[in-house]
Amino acid sequence: MDSSQFRDAAHSAIEEIIQYYDTLAERPVLPSISPGYLRPLLPDGPPEEGEAWPQIQADIERLIKPGLTHWQSPKFMAFFPCNSSFPGMLGELYSGAFNAAAFNWICSPAVTELETVVMDWIAAMLGLPEAYVSKGEGGGIIQGTASEVVVTAVVAARERLVRRKLSLEGLDAEAEEGMERAAELRGKMVALGSEHAHSSTQKAAIIAGTRFRSVPAPRETGFRVTGTALRQVIEECKKKGLEPFYFTATIGTTATCAVDDLEGIAQVAREYPDIWIHVDAAYAGSALICPEYQHLCPSMQHFDSFNFNLHKWLLVNFDCSAFFIKRRKDLIDTYSITPSYLRNKFTESGLVTDYRDWQIPLGRRFRSLKVWFVLRTYGVNGLQGFIRNHVKLGEYFHGLIASREDLFTVVTGPAFGLTTFHVNPRSITSLASSPANEPNPAHEAYLNDFTNSAEAQFREDANQATKEVYERVNSQGEFFLTSTVVCGVYVIRVVSATERAEEKYLKRVFEVLVEAAEEVVKGKVT
Amino acid sequence: MDSSQFRDAAHSAIEEIIQYYDTLAERPVLPSISPGYLRPLLPDGPPEEGEAWPQIQADIERLIKPGLTHWQSPKFMAFFPCNSSFPGMLGELYSGAFNAAAFNWICSPAVTELETVVMDWIAAMLGLPEAYVSKGEGGGIIQGTASEVVVTAVVAARERLVRRKLSLEGLDAEAEEGMERAAELRGKMVALGSEHAHSSTQKAAIIAGTRFRSVPAPRETGFRVTGTALRQVIEECKKKGLEPFYFTATIGTTATCAVDDLEGIAQVAREYPDIWIHVDAAYAGSALICPEYQHLCPSMQHFDSFNFNLHKWLLVNFDCSAFFIKRRKDLIDTYSITPSYLRNKFTESGLVTDYRDWQIPLGRRFRSLKVWFVLRTYGVNGLQGFIRNHVKLGEYFHGLIASREDLFTVVTGPAFGLTTFHVNPRSITSLASSPANEPNPAHEAYLNDFTNSAEAQFREDANQATKEVYERVNSQGEFFLTSTVVCGVYVIRVVSATERAEEKYLKRVFEVLVEAAEEVVKGKVT
Repeated sequence: MDSSQFRDAAHSAIEEIIQYYDTLAERPVLPSISPGYLRPLLPDGPPEEGEAWPQIQADIERLIKPGLTHWQSPKFMAFFPCNSSFPGMLGELYSGAFNAAAFNWICSPAVTELETVVMDWIAAMLGLPEAYVSKGEGGGIIQGTASEVVVTAVVAARERLVRRKLSLEGLDAEAEEGMERAAELRGKMVALGSEHAHSSTQKAAIIAGTRFRSVPAPRETGFRVTGTALRQVIEECKKKGLEPFYFTATIGTTATCAVDDLEGIAQVAREYPDIWIHVDAAYAGSALICPEYQHLCPSMQHFDSFNFNLHKWLLVNFDCSAFFIKRRKDLIDTYSITPSYLRNKFTESGLVTDYRDWQIPLGRRFRSLKVWFVLRTYGVNGLQGFIRNHVKLGEYFHGLIASREDLFTVVTGPAFGLTTFHVNPRSITSLASSPANEPNPAHEAYLNDFTNSAEAQFREDANQATKEVYERVNSQGEFFLTSTVVCGVYVIRVVSATERAEEKYLKRVFEVLVEAAEEVVKGKVT
Repeated sequence: MDSSQFRDAAHSAIEEIIQYYDTLAERPVLPSISPGYLRPLLPDGPPEEGEAWPQIQADIERLIKPGLTHWQSPKFMAFFPCNSSFPGMLGELYSGAFNAAAFNWICSPAVTELETVVMDWIAAMLGLPEAYVSKGEGGGIIQGTASEVVVTAVVAARERLVRRKLSLEGLDAEAEEGMERAAELRGKMVALGSEHAHSSTQKAAIIAGTRFRSVPAPRETGFRVTGTALRQVIEECKKKGLEPFYFTATIGTTATCAVDDLEGIAQVAREYPDIWIHVDAAYAGSALICPEYQHLCPSMQHFDSFNFNLHKWLLVNFDCSAFFIKRRKDLIDTYSITPSYLRNKFTESGLVTDYRDWQIPLGRRFRSLKVWFVLRTYGVNGLQGFIRNHVKLGEYFHGLIASREDLFTVVTGPAFGLTTFHVNPRSITSLASSPANEPNPAHEAYLNDFTNSAEAQFREDANQATKEVYERVNSQGEFFLTSTVVCGVYVIRVVSATERAEEKYLKRVFEVLVEAAEEVVKGKVT
């Protein structure tokens, strides 16, 4: 493909992308193909001779689009959003053009330097404590996903504690005695995470070869981990001779967007300075660009690291997770394999950052370019407006669900645009023999701990009804929602935060939900 | 940025990229800025209100390009290449447009299915054993970089051995006794890699919390690890009560593009089935698309996994590392955190692949799109021609260096386009008192082990001269080369394998090297 062919191909691709975005709302959000749809449609191998672009492009329409789930559709209300934007795509295009395996400064200085600057901009936008800015001992790095960030933090936390203990015990990490002691320590270490924290903490513990324990976050505390609960688990572990070394606090859990009790946890952080506390705000962190959410930030000064995904709710296409660290030395001491006699103040001063020493992989993409394009295209006000619009849409949807309390019961939200709810148990046959307007004690116990078998049956019925509603809606293909189970309760999650989100789509999904719920309930009543 | 603004912006970006590629050869390959150049040129934060694209684009020319190292320039002969291509960029553009956090099949079926198909295509192109194809128990996955692949393999190897040992000992991995035994095992484990293997193996061992030991690969074996050397290190470890569990074999080491003794290592693999053998062919693996290199492949049936980077030498822009595994279960058993009662034959049959269970991160980009575009645009013949052209250029350059044996001594190559060489020690003053055409025993000993202090001084002198030549050439900025030290010998590495590589640039870099070497030698002689 020469320059001129590239021009033609790119113009044609741009038109297709524009047309795709302009028609997103009309497409069923979920594809209707079956597993294995693609292979029979493709040849057995690549062609011997090259093909022209028009031939290739035609196959995108014919073979790829029918197999896409349309995450940019305003009818996508599942998981969390994964927003793209036109300036983000341009960033990806330039990044491909300026292609480099930029593993250190000289490999392409602009890649390192723009990243450091935009990460400082973001730290300031979010109101993060000064400690997370590069001019001190901390700073930010762009990694791929929150799950990579969590592994990076867990392993660094494990090794920080090993170094501290060996140093206290006067052992040399390179000597046999030190290696044996380090292995013994790692075998006793426990990574902690909320029972509602993303599964990435548990997976990170497997990768790090440590244990994992979840911290309870029951309904009574709003599915939040409190300082008290965390302290209790830490003490229980210590009593068993185990060594808690890491905890993921969450701003916006996957299930319900709960925010852990950061102030209580900050107190625990002060009591146990050997425990690395990482704050995962993968989705909800973007809201911190709005001053009305920044009251969550001051606690962060007591923690070790923080991340959120610009690819979720800040219009930078996947992947782009912003990872901020309070003492970059905590990463470098683990991830740099440059021998100690080659380290120098020049590097540690921050004048030249070798981001390879802040991460697991060696090579790096030029991701800061797309961040820079998005920040400048929207401006701070534009991005704040973007977030606030979704928060407002979440409130609107919550209001709709709440208006039909005969049919639905809100469990959480609206929180950062997310509402979770289930079918109102009172609407269901098996226990509907008591008039709906007279409270039934079993109903009230529904969401609490219980042992009574009638109540257990009651909850089981409601869970089943909610699951049926959920499956009905998704199988229609118009909208894509997700469900989850929180503390034994099956809930439907609705979050509408794509760039093209509008009130009318929430109104419509509500109608679809009502219709499905009425049918399910009717089926159970008859 | 609306559709119409995006069209204008994208067209303008395309023109800039075309102009950048058309003028690459005229630019100095290395930037001339100093550390910290960028921050003073940028505002303190993002703008409050959004800016228009022309304003942003102007800053790419003004602020970014002066800070780029031009990896696509034909004058880039450093490290290994990191090639981009126009169809690769189009793939990145569409991937941004179809943006999704595609962590499982339903999240966007085309993302999973295209990846499985193109990886099978690639396995066939490379002549990999059938075991690495998805229709059996193996298959391929696209990960970011070779270093991520190596961590993925090392951790999976560690856990595979833990599972096997616990199972033999009848211990439950979830019970305290099993956890303690697992920790004890991990503490004794040793990851092995050639002394010339990429540093990623050592870093992976740190991340996995295991030990690392290098396997000698001296000059006498052509810097290759032999089966004998590997067996010896394994036995030494076992005698110390340690447990070797993983070895990185290399096709094309970073320093010299040496290929380890795969047949000898395959024999070791049969003797020690608990040791996971991974083949890292990050750069050189692309050459396997040419039948003349496929004699390296049959040994692979005795190994566990293999990877190479399409972003190095196969025109797919960064990042894109192809990772093939013989038994995907070896990955899934470690990386899947789906409870066992949710696993089913449906998933394990390969009908629905959840690639998140083959890797460390959860989310995934649509990387197979750019691979598909590149394979189709060039065709197999086009790609083979691309590789063979660079191999030929490497031979040409090797011939030039060899033609000046008074000045240079070839150390290795040409291998996959790479030649390494140093200043001929005979040309240097301190020991040049004996006529150059009469062999001096010290010269002959130069590259071997020695203790004689005169010989050590001789080697030191030659290393110093070579370093000076290297620094002179790089400081001129016209070309970018790298140097390295192999078994105590300082060498300059030249590999020219960018898309725009041509003989004339190799002729020119040779002239520049000769000029620099003559000046350095003259300086030492006078």
